[in-house]
Amino acid sequence: MPHIPLDENLPGITGLLNYRQDTALPIRQLTQILLRGESTLTPGERELIATVTSQGNQCRFCTAAHSAAADAWYGDRLTTEMVKTDLVNAPVSEKMKSLLEIARRVQADARTVSTELVEKARQQGATDMEIHDTVLIAALFCLYNKYVDGLASVTPDEPEFYDRLAGILKNKGYLPSPDRYASLNETK
Amino acid sequence: MPHIPLDENLPGITGLLNYRQDTALPIRQLTQILLRGESTLTPGERELIATVTSQGNQCRFCTAAHSAAADAWYGDRLTTEMVKTDLVNAPVSEKMKSLLEIARRVQADARTVSTELVEKARQQGATDMEIHDTVLIAALFCLYNKYVDGLASVTPDEPEFYDRLAGILKNKGYLPSPDRYASLNETK
Repeated sequence: MPHIPLDENLPGITGLLNYRQDTALPIRQLTQILLRGESTLTPGERELIATVTSQGNQCRFCTAAHSAAADAWYGDRLTTEMVKTDLVNAPVSEKMKSLLEIARRVQADARTVSTELVEKARQQGATDMEIHDTVLIAALFCLYNKYVDGLASVTPDEPEFYDRLAGILKNKGYLPSPDRYASLNETK
Repeated sequence: MPHIPLDENLPGITGLLNYRQDTALPIRQLTQILLRGESTLTPGERELIATVTSQGNQCRFCTAAHSAAADAWYGDRLTTEMVKTDLVNAPVSEKMKSLLEIARRVQADARTVSTELVEKARQQGATDMEIHDTVLIAALFCLYNKYVDGLASVTPDEPEFYDRLAGILKNKGYLPSPDRYASLNETK
């Protein structure tokens, strides 16, 4: 049960963003810029950064939500699954492997992002802005993970819930929108 | 040395917020609402939440900056020092001690914020919104700490630097402002 009264039709982060909408707006805007704004990283690649960060924080809600979002962009479930369980052999570029390793270190202890690792990413083609954005996306998802779990928001068990949420994120993005979550709890 | 090219006159978070200003704006807006907006917690109390979070993440820049900011609001250095080193005996309310303990758990592992601890805070007078804001401020400062250290931004050694920065934060708040950091590097 959540530590504060949240709309029970809005599990995970959705109820929190609804609870205090004035703080939700800049969080949503920052997410929209970083995950959907102009970038040399694809939306799918950026969802993978969100996913490995959430996985590192063991935030079940965010890990499931952003795995499903990455799956929606990649059009398969294998890529995200491999990134989470066997990064070395995952079907992503060597540059992405280095950026995902940077994200994991940001999550665990940001002071361990070494010059060597950044240099390796750069040799694999990463730009300064890609390195910057990887760190900031990982930092932002630490905020989300801690917000969601620190207030004990509800984590649905059904995989179908996260696929519906991922559809909303893929089609509508992260900014507020009318009837945003109308389809969230619909069952077949 | 920072992992990406930052203005060397803008150490710590200041250079990062200058590097990518479109993402900086919502971060600044969120901080202004949470730390300076309408609240039943004082600005000094909210700076203490930022401080213990940064201390937990061992982010030297943010810990020094927000310790100095809390000092500026409290008008002494003892309160913050005691909060950081001996919370039980610190000269803050019992409610604040519980909220600061919640912030520390959000930083360390947000899943450890227990119903018992939240209930204790509530019995000491904490409202739902104060509990919400404590968690979100701690989550936001995890973002800041990881942004600052994940990109290896510069951490000045001189305490006077942080007092100058704290003066800017106390007088101007967190939103962008003209010549915001003009006095940051001035020496007597």
